[in-house]
Amino acid sequence: MDVRGARQAVEQLIDRPWFQGTVIAVILVNAAVLGFETSESWMAEHGDATHAIGWATLVVFVVELALRLFAEGWRFWRSGWNVFDFFVVAIAFVPGGQASGVLRVLRILRVLRLLSTIRSMRSVVAALIATIPGMGSIAALLVILLYVSAVMSTELFGATDPEHFGNLGSSLLSLFQVTTGDDWANVVRPTADAHPWAWGFFVGFVVISTYVVLNLFIAVAVEALDRQTEEDNSEMVDEVEHHMDESTTAILAAIEDLKRQVSALEARLEARD
Amino acid sequence: MDVRGARQAVEQLIDRPWFQGTVIAVILVNAAVLGFETSESWMAEHGDATHAIGWATLVVFVVELALRLFAEGWRFWRSGWNVFDFFVVAIAFVPGGQASGVLRVLRILRVLRLLSTIRSMRSVVAALIATIPGMGSIAALLVILLYVSAVMSTELFGATDPEHFGNLGSSLLSLFQVTTGDDWANVVRPTADAHPWAWGFFVGFVVISTYVVLNLFIAVAVEALDRQTEEDNSEMVDEVEHHMDESTTAILAAIEDLKRQVSALEARLEARD
Amino acid sequence: MDVRGARQAVEQLIDRPWFQGTVIAVILVNAAVLGFETSESWMAEHGDATHAIGWATLVVFVVELALRLFAEGWRFWRSGWNVFDFFVVAIAFVPGGQASGVLRVLRILRVLRLLSTIRSMRSVVAALIATIPGMGSIAALLVILLYVSAVMSTELFGATDPEHFGNLGSSLLSLFQVTTGDDWANVVRPTADAHPWAWGFFVGFVVISTYVVLNLFIAVAVEALDRQTEEDNSEMVDEVEHHMDESTTAILAAIEDLKRQVSALEARLEARD
Amino acid sequence: MDVRGARQAVEQLIDRPWFQGTVIAVILVNAAVLGFETSESWMAEHGDATHAIGWATLVVFVVELALRLFAEGWRFWRSGWNVFDFFVVAIAFVPGGQASGVLRVLRILRVLRLLSTIRSMRSVVAALIATIPGMGSIAALLVILLYVSAVMSTELFGATDPEHFGNLGSSLLSLFQVTTGDDWANVVRPTADAHPWAWGFFVGFVVISTYVVLNLFIAVAVEALDRQTEEDNSEMVDEVEHHMDESTTAILAAIEDLKRQVSALEARLEARD
Repeated sequence: MDVRGARQAVEQLIDRPWFQGTVIAVILVNAAVLGFETSESWMAEHGDATHAIGWATLVVFVVELALRLFAEGWRFWRSGWNVFDFFVVAIAFVPGGQASGVLRVLRILRVLRLLSTIRSMRSVVAALIATIPGMGSIAALLVILLYVSAVMSTELFGATDPEHFGNLGSSLLSLFQVTTGDDWANVVRPTADAHPWAWGFFVGFVVISTYVVLNLFIAVAVEALDRQTEEDNSEMVDEVEHHMDESTTAILAAIEDLKRQVSALEARLEARD
Repeated sequence: MDVRGARQAVEQLIDRPWFQGTVIAVILVNAAVLGFETSESWMAEHGDATHAIGWATLVVFVVELALRLFAEGWRFWRSGWNVFDFFVVAIAFVPGGQASGVLRVLRILRVLRLLSTIRSMRSVVAALIATIPGMGSIAALLVILLYVSAVMSTELFGATDPEHFGNLGSSLLSLFQVTTGDDWANVVRPTADAHPWAWGFFVGFVVISTYVVLNLFIAVAVEALDRQTEEDNSEMVDEVEHHMDESTTAILAAIEDLKRQVSALEARLEARD
Repeated sequence: MDVRGARQAVEQLIDRPWFQGTVIAVILVNAAVLGFETSESWMAEHGDATHAIGWATLVVFVVELALRLFAEGWRFWRSGWNVFDFFVVAIAFVPGGQASGVLRVLRILRVLRLLSTIRSMRSVVAALIATIPGMGSIAALLVILLYVSAVMSTELFGATDPEHFGNLGSSLLSLFQVTTGDDWANVVRPTADAHPWAWGFFVGFVVISTYVVLNLFIAVAVEALDRQTEEDNSEMVDEVEHHMDESTTAILAAIEDLKRQVSALEARLEARD
Repeated sequence: MDVRGARQAVEQLIDRPWFQGTVIAVILVNAAVLGFETSESWMAEHGDATHAIGWATLVVFVVELALRLFAEGWRFWRSGWNVFDFFVVAIAFVPGGQASGVLRVLRILRVLRLLSTIRSMRSVVAALIATIPGMGSIAALLVILLYVSAVMSTELFGATDPEHFGNLGSSLLSLFQVTTGDDWANVVRPTADAHPWAWGFFVGFVVISTYVVLNLFIAVAVEALDRQTEEDNSEMVDEVEHHMDESTTAILAAIEDLKRQVSALEARLEARD
């Protein structure tokens, strides 16, 4: 068997349901292993077995990636999902990677391979990402609103309540918290007790930011609904047009019939001439 | 009267509005009894009467179930609602059931018989359950996001804030709490004061999880709206098609009229020949 | 002028824009008076003037009601809004009404006369009330869910956390608070620290009740959207049908033309006979 | 070159993409400068450079405004956006403006020039403002509800919990906080522990105000959706009408054909006469 034949055989193997199923199962096992590794008491007792299973799942990932690289060649790198798969597996082989804390933590990103491997998850993620541009302008408006309000409250309230508004970073976080509606009254109360007019500032901020966030949510919802509506509408248009075509056909047939009648009349006259 | 006749008679009895009404009333009485039983002061004074009424409602439930089992025979077990009704009543007769705390608590599930007995509640519950599959993929995405973030925060912040991120379970609960938007800033503050970069992690988590939950909600809303829209659309298509049929009929009648005229002309010519 | 003539004159007076405007202005003045009356420092200084203005507004209300009663006669009592207007004004004349605390408080309900007097507010309130039946079944489901969960948590957690789950009333309130998503983790934490499995109960409750509330909201939204969609759809159907009628008219005219042509042919043949 | 020619040249200059881009970049630099000015440690080290850059951006703003004033003449003042641009720049030249705290703070409003300068932001802001009238009546209803409830709770609970309900202002803020769903149970608990019936008042307020806010949100969403739907519908109507026109054209052509046939018949008869 030559290389091209081998490639095709590997490609068919990769597309088999049982192969996909095995990879998904191994990702789930790997997720469980990484979960157990966070428990010191478990690792003290079953540490060796857990590490062994972890390495075994890694071997499966490497073999699967090698097969896909062999089958797809350079095309492999064209898909963002594939690049993602490659890097989350490659993390394990960065020198010192098992020691360094951050790289250790990044290993859990391998669980996100569920998103790249299961087809329906892939399309859900793609759909979520596709709606992001539609909210770009409103999200920018929210960021501008947060920044302007944060600079203002740092200058105005920084001395009064240094914990929440002491510097630009704290102010941004405090106002982001207010925007999510979480415990905003307690963030705002120390300042507003000192400067009663500050209530006006904060109630205004709550109303405006809630309104902007609401419109952000509505923009996402309208886009989702619109996709649905467009499908429904084109179905409806098809149905009405199909019915219209039937009516038109019936009318044209009747006219055709009439034409034949007139032609017969003409023929009769012609015959008489 | 033979068995078949008796079955039919019982079936008719069960479907009578007053029978249904009585069962619903008894479920409500039973609900009130179970409510009063939680009050020690009430039970100290009226305990015997309350227990007596409780046993009386149970007798009604058993009789009703026996009638339905007799009338429907083996078909009874085909409906999930019936199986549910059987088990919530059967709980009372598990040996030691009145003593054991958990079984005592499960008796309150009998109130849920309102959902299986009132027809409009049944269809609401069925509709709610029917929308669950449509959100499957996004719910799975949320679970994956929670799991990955929980493993990460256990490894990164477990030592800093053991109360919220000490083990995988605590982390999952803390992040679930953050996802519901409840008091998230207080969960996050101890950790973020120790590691300033942690704000980035948590703000990112809040934004992404809010976005996923929003899309979960939108998926449910779009499905509900779509059902409504489909009805509206088919009504609209029917109306347009009906109008179109009337137009077509008028046109075809005019052509038919013309045909008759041409036929008359033909007849005249034929007569002259 | 006889009584009927007087009634018509009064009816016309009541419908004048300046009369309506005056009543609305007096309601606003009355609202301000009731607001100032809550401030002890204001009442110490301007108490007499404020009371005087309050009594003057009351006189206006009585005169307006008397005019409306005279003009509309028995028909007055047919409208719920009118009955509401009558009672919020009548409160002031209940013996001891100015002394008793509760009746004093109820005077503020006069501000709600804005809802009955301003036409656009009336229709908004009517629209809000009209959507209530559509959510009846789901609201009932939420109430059943709250009741069942409250009985369960009273029995299971009453001893552990008497403040939140000590009796059925506290449990209902605590779970209502959890349902609104307000500070639920703090309500739940003392119990869940004692019984770790309680997290399962509460997370389940949060998920299910959020889902039911979401569906309650969606039911309201779908109803509002549906009203809008129906208008849009009937406009669209009208437009399409109008276009269709024009097409049909054009076709029928062409056929009519053809008929005249055939008739002319017939006449020519007849003339030749 | 005369004045008119100069005006046209300046107008073209202002509309160039690179000119717009430069202005946007300068606004962003100015935003960063105002951000850095809130940090004392940064200003201690780089204060002079930061101030210099701040003045430079101001010079750019003044030049840009002067060019636009020259190019547009009196028309400049007709657009609200232009007036806004003028005032946020003019703030810097109010005598004592650099010293006074409030005017210092207002300088950050210059960042909002991003909204007036970037075309897509301008249309987003215009769209947000356009939806405000549609929610006027429901917002008024919410304000009335808040005011009535605030007067009531001041009179009823002012003595019990002076912190939250001591005067009309506090009550309005506390109830606004309850309306946003933030920490409402803690606001309400001290009062409700003293007067158990107060739970009824507050739960009623939560349910009604949530319902009104929900309807406020739905009004905004329905308006946004309606704009989308109207576009979709008119597209759909166009498509159906185009198809209908094609059918009508085909039918009329067939009838025309028939007419020619009859005319030929007529001509033949005429020729024979």
